[in-house]
Amino acid sequence: MKKLNIGLIGYGFMGRAHSNAYLKVSRFFDLEYQPVLKAVCARSADKVKAFADNWGWESVETDWRKLVERDDIDAIDIGSPNNTHRDIVLAAAKAGKMILCEKPLAMNAAEGLEMTEAVEKAGVPNMVWFNYRRVPAITLAKQFMDEGRLGRVFHYRAKYLQDWTISPDLPQGGAALWRLDADVAGSGVTGDLLAHSIDTAIWLIGGVDKVCAMTETFIKERALQDDPGTVKSVTIDDACAFLARFKNGALATFESTRYARGRKNQNTFEVNGEFGSLYFDLEDAHQLQYFDHRNDSQSRGWRTILVTDSDHPYMGHWWVPGCVIGYEHTFINALADFLGGLASGVPVRPNFRDALETQYVCDAVLDSAKTETWKTVGA
Amino acid sequence: MKKLNIGLIGYGFMGRAHSNAYLKVSRFFDLEYQPVLKAVCARSADKVKAFADNWGWESVETDWRKLVERDDIDAIDIGSPNNTHRDIVLAAAKAGKMILCEKPLAMNAAEGLEMTEAVEKAGVPNMVWFNYRRVPAITLAKQFMDEGRLGRVFHYRAKYLQDWTISPDLPQGGAALWRLDADVAGSGVTGDLLAHSIDTAIWLIGGVDKVCAMTETFIKERALQDDPGTVKSVTIDDACAFLARFKNGALATFESTRYARGRKNQNTFEVNGEFGSLYFDLEDAHQLQYFDHRNDSQSRGWRTILVTDSDHPYMGHWWVPGCVIGYEHTFINALADFLGGLASGVPVRPNFRDALETQYVCDAVLDSAKTETWKTVGA
Amino acid sequence: MKKLNIGLIGYGFMGRAHSNAYLKVSRFFDLEYQPVLKAVCARSADKVKAFADNWGWESVETDWRKLVERDDIDAIDIGSPNNTHRDIVLAAAKAGKMILCEKPLAMNAAEGLEMTEAVEKAGVPNMVWFNYRRVPAITLAKQFMDEGRLGRVFHYRAKYLQDWTISPDLPQGGAALWRLDADVAGSGVTGDLLAHSIDTAIWLIGGVDKVCAMTETFIKERALQDDPGTVKSVTIDDACAFLARFKNGALATFESTRYARGRKNQNTFEVNGEFGSLYFDLEDAHQLQYFDHRNDSQSRGWRTILVTDSDHPYMGHWWVPGCVIGYEHTFINALADFLGGLASGVPVRPNFRDALETQYVCDAVLDSAKTETWKTVGA
Amino acid sequence: MKKLNIGLIGYGFMGRAHSNAYLKVSRFFDLEYQPVLKAVCARSADKVKAFADNWGWESVETDWRKLVERDDIDAIDIGSPNNTHRDIVLAAAKAGKMILCEKPLAMNAAEGLEMTEAVEKAGVPNMVWFNYRRVPAITLAKQFMDEGRLGRVFHYRAKYLQDWTISPDLPQGGAALWRLDADVAGSGVTGDLLAHSIDTAIWLIGGVDKVCAMTETFIKERALQDDPGTVKSVTIDDACAFLARFKNGALATFESTRYARGRKNQNTFEVNGEFGSLYFDLEDAHQLQYFDHRNDSQSRGWRTILVTDSDHPYMGHWWVPGCVIGYEHTFINALADFLGGLASGVPVRPNFRDALETQYVCDAVLDSAKTETWKTVGA
Repeated sequence: MKKLNIGLIGYGFMGRAHSNAYLKVSRFFDLEYQPVLKAVCARSADKVKAFADNWGWESVETDWRKLVERDDIDAIDIGSPNNTHRDIVLAAAKAGKMILCEKPLAMNAAEGLEMTEAVEKAGVPNMVWFNYRRVPAITLAKQFMDEGRLGRVFHYRAKYLQDWTISPDLPQGGAALWRLDADVAGSGVTGDLLAHSIDTAIWLIGGVDKVCAMTETFIKERALQDDPGTVKSVTIDDACAFLARFKNGALATFESTRYARGRKNQNTFEVNGEFGSLYFDLEDAHQLQYFDHRNDSQSRGWRTILVTDSDHPYMGHWWVPGCVIGYEHTFINALADFLGGLASGVPVRPNFRDALETQYVCDAVLDSAKTETWKTVGA
Repeated sequence: MKKLNIGLIGYGFMGRAHSNAYLKVSRFFDLEYQPVLKAVCARSADKVKAFADNWGWESVETDWRKLVERDDIDAIDIGSPNNTHRDIVLAAAKAGKMILCEKPLAMNAAEGLEMTEAVEKAGVPNMVWFNYRRVPAITLAKQFMDEGRLGRVFHYRAKYLQDWTISPDLPQGGAALWRLDADVAGSGVTGDLLAHSIDTAIWLIGGVDKVCAMTETFIKERALQDDPGTVKSVTIDDACAFLARFKNGALATFESTRYARGRKNQNTFEVNGEFGSLYFDLEDAHQLQYFDHRNDSQSRGWRTILVTDSDHPYMGHWWVPGCVIGYEHTFINALADFLGGLASGVPVRPNFRDALETQYVCDAVLDSAKTETWKTVGA
Repeated sequence: MKKLNIGLIGYGFMGRAHSNAYLKVSRFFDLEYQPVLKAVCARSADKVKAFADNWGWESVETDWRKLVERDDIDAIDIGSPNNTHRDIVLAAAKAGKMILCEKPLAMNAAEGLEMTEAVEKAGVPNMVWFNYRRVPAITLAKQFMDEGRLGRVFHYRAKYLQDWTISPDLPQGGAALWRLDADVAGSGVTGDLLAHSIDTAIWLIGGVDKVCAMTETFIKERALQDDPGTVKSVTIDDACAFLARFKNGALATFESTRYARGRKNQNTFEVNGEFGSLYFDLEDAHQLQYFDHRNDSQSRGWRTILVTDSDHPYMGHWWVPGCVIGYEHTFINALADFLGGLASGVPVRPNFRDALETQYVCDAVLDSAKTETWKTVGA
Repeated sequence: MKKLNIGLIGYGFMGRAHSNAYLKVSRFFDLEYQPVLKAVCARSADKVKAFADNWGWESVETDWRKLVERDDIDAIDIGSPNNTHRDIVLAAAKAGKMILCEKPLAMNAAEGLEMTEAVEKAGVPNMVWFNYRRVPAITLAKQFMDEGRLGRVFHYRAKYLQDWTISPDLPQGGAALWRLDADVAGSGVTGDLLAHSIDTAIWLIGGVDKVCAMTETFIKERALQDDPGTVKSVTIDDACAFLARFKNGALATFESTRYARGRKNQNTFEVNGEFGSLYFDLEDAHQLQYFDHRNDSQSRGWRTILVTDSDHPYMGHWWVPGCVIGYEHTFINALADFLGGLASGVPVRPNFRDALETQYVCDAVLDSAKTETWKTVGA
């Protein structure tokens, strides 16, 4: 078995999810490469030390530049805020490291292009953690699409709804709430949530031709988390909805918000094709709904497929049929695919180039909302 | 078109449902026989007159014996309380009238047998209003069973849950609450609700071999509706559950109660067979759920069939695909079948003989609960 | 009881639904006015005669102008195709008749304005049959909104999805398929389906400020139903989606199509407010889903309210708690409200003025789709 | 942090689930005791070595007696087949080891009593892995019961349905299929599945007074997995259903089978109380359904609580609100509680005494089925 030394940057929500994946992947998947939790990096020496102790990281760094330069690191895993991705990627690519980067890839498409060209020029394996592609039900949906079960696609509709920012008392910025600060996050729901929806859509349906969007910031001002006495304008988009036309002629609607009372993590999509339809909701992540028009007319109906059998994607690696897996497993499945790609020589997807395509859509969406016009997705 | 003169007995909940059916059936079904609302009968002259005016009944009677003897009546429809069924049926059969009788057929199987023999001897068309057989989704389930879609049946489970008698302040007896008085109703949930479940079960699966039951009366005493100062023991079964073995070897559980908080009219059944399963819930009466194991293994799932297409049972007579029908339509569908049976010469089911079979099961259930032993269903 | 003589125009799908309403309304509602099925009018003498016989209409006409002029007619009910509405309304208003008109009100807002001014000038009672306002669950949603249960509204999303026109073999035009001919229908899904969605939205949320839409015609050519050898361009919109901003600041998405495989009559809306959310789906018309954020935090959840209890809107007039009503009942409930409005002097809604507001939105939507720009809703 | 040296017996399905729990618990829970994967034991030297390598167990044993006697082992964890539990427990208790035992506790109540008395006499911490108590939604149900949200309980109904043994080609016995061999498993679905249902029921409602059961073996003979040419009688119960009365007067039905086509791991329960009801289905393990009758009458409905918020049981230890956990986490949660109990001095439940109570119910159920009579649950 080959060792793959990992250097992780960031110890927040994603730091935990990735650490868990490195710890578990080899126990459940039979892989040629075994990740080693070599070093974790973050600015606070105390906190990163505690994190390393908890998860079994062998060493710590407080400057990511040092981490990137270490000879004993094979792969850099980026779990830090969005505004740090570019510089780390450029340095890591230059240092010849493999790169696993959290989504969204970049603050905007210009950055994303620079980063993509850097990793491609360096020829280093690269992946972006659009983990929802590895929800078994979504992977199954992709398989059904590839098998031609739906025929010509007419419609796609995606939503990503949450409700955790409705209170005006919620502050912005800081370690926990940087997603509410456009200077750190790049955008609001567009980059954080719709990027997921767009990545899935492109994977399932193909490229997006043009979009027309609207965005809104419902709560105009919030206090700063790290300085409660200071109130500042909220610069992110609280909500974003857009119309889209795919290159293959399908029509789409996308919507995301953090103001949909009662929707906790409702990431849904529906595809309507000539022969059938698919529906998925992340709040019931173990299910894929499927309508097969080719069933006899009296017995047609929407099927709820429990994606928990051993012949469903990834599930043979986990427990027994009927037993569900959870949020964390999407990262483990993705990591297994990344490691499998190293062994097989068939690189994992989505890579930076794929994520850049999503970034172009995000940029077009934000631009469309600002100008109130339709925008063709850039290239 | 041939006229069929109807004489209805009773103007309560069932009187309304039947009147509505007579009023509408010819508008939606192309039938040889057209029912005429000839006479309605009830003890209170004032109330029956008002009822007749509202629904367009041509005349009224206050003594059912007179109604039965009228030459201008072709069919007697019995919607009065259970303890009146026997005498009316015997007289009507003797008078050579067709009979449509509300369920349960009788107070007990002994009465039921007497009544069944009377109508058979008289050779008069007869039907019992087990209206749920005419819920399109249940009719479709029957069709699926007959087509062999499920193969060998292993399991059947039925529930009929309501919650309207939980309050100890609810009185018993009287015009509106005779269903809580065993002297009038014969039994509690067993005759009122489980009779429906049993009728459906026998229709779908076949005869019941033996049963083991328990019953309970949660609220032991209630005031009388017609005499609020008087408190009497409650004599009905508030709840009843039983195990059963069908003659074909399938196992079953049945349960009914009026103490299931939040369940309003939850009449459900599930059939598990070798090749597939079916599930129905009256609270979602427009749906039939179907699992087809013969689908390819990755796409198997429970289908929710919207039973609203024009090729589904009865639905071609109603609106356009996608439009639901309601509770009342089960009576209209049943009536259409009764009238169609008169024309075709193929008598409608369930007839008295069918309902008697259900009555035998009810008797065995109540006997089993009392003696705490298994009971073979009588014949 | 006062008689109200009805003259109905059209004997298609809506002709049946309205006839059924006139037949039943007085049996279930206690009303001062009783409709009389006086005359029905359609061009084919044979067909209208058969229709009248079936439903009990006292007389027939083949020219609607004669019907409008008859002294024994109090109210004109328009169930004929959209391109006939204007002329009939202008004539009926001039003749001083009450008018009940099917939706959409008109071919476009210019017609609609002319018609609205005509009925207002004539001072005749008028109603447009947006029957879904009378689905008890939707009426309940309106009541919840009026009670302030949701607080400030952030989001509204509506869909109206069907799948019956996917086959390229389906012809267009003719008596049954005029909805596929823009010369008769005015538009495709926008006027037929989205008009319902918009009417409900305005009722629940308030006026629409501006919209941005896209439309598509997936099947470009179809044979004519009445002349199968002739193939013509399809002129209607097969699908339409639009973004909207309400005047109160709420954001909305709307979408309709007849190309959503597996969706039969899926008319849905969701409202997200500060304190709670509502969700409705016409395919489960007996339910309203409600999320109440003010419940204690551990027990919050989306409630499925079975809108079948006697204290729910309209339900006390129908059967007993737990028994559902169907599609046809929405017309009966609407008619009861119209008749009740005549008696009380509080006119029923939606009237022509309300329907005109919906028509303005439809016009803006179609204009926006054509020009690919945002459009402010006209006045 | 105190180290707790674990000795695990068995490397099958449960061996994996427990190993995963030992690996992860300290990463997610802040605990005084940290488990050390000291030794794993199984008869096959090769296989146990491979298992140990994969999971990081420090050493291996092939004779459980040696494991039990090792001084460096603090706790024995029993994941081997049911017919090994007794001997291991008696030896481990004698050796003063803590014991964590898979369910069902024993082959029968006589064994269970002997084992319970042994651990109690030895005074060693003990737990039985009824892991479903640690499904957050079930823990929440228990909390709601304890808070009195349901009031007096009238009904309980539990099902545990699977479909994986329907094929007559499935063999019995051997390493993978010992659950189909009564000599190894003690019974069929009663001990394997209903034991879970009974444990949950007793926890939520209280003790069971008496039961009446039926069992069935649908496929009478099967080949042996380890000797495909030999066909033997099937000795387990394929299906079991029983009626029960709780000591507090509530009525119950229980049913389990491995012949319910389409039901993969459908472990459900419903409680109906005076003020409300609860419903749970393991196939949607992240949800608890709750009906609160004390809501205002128009808005009452069954709520689907997504048990994924940080103030729900256990969830604060996992990811962020809206992210689900899976099957494996129930073991980690249970282990965290066991370790927490060691620290706090408040022993974890269910202990052997609790599991014995479930065993008495199982024995009464099997006895009742054999004798076709009601049986009082032993003590």
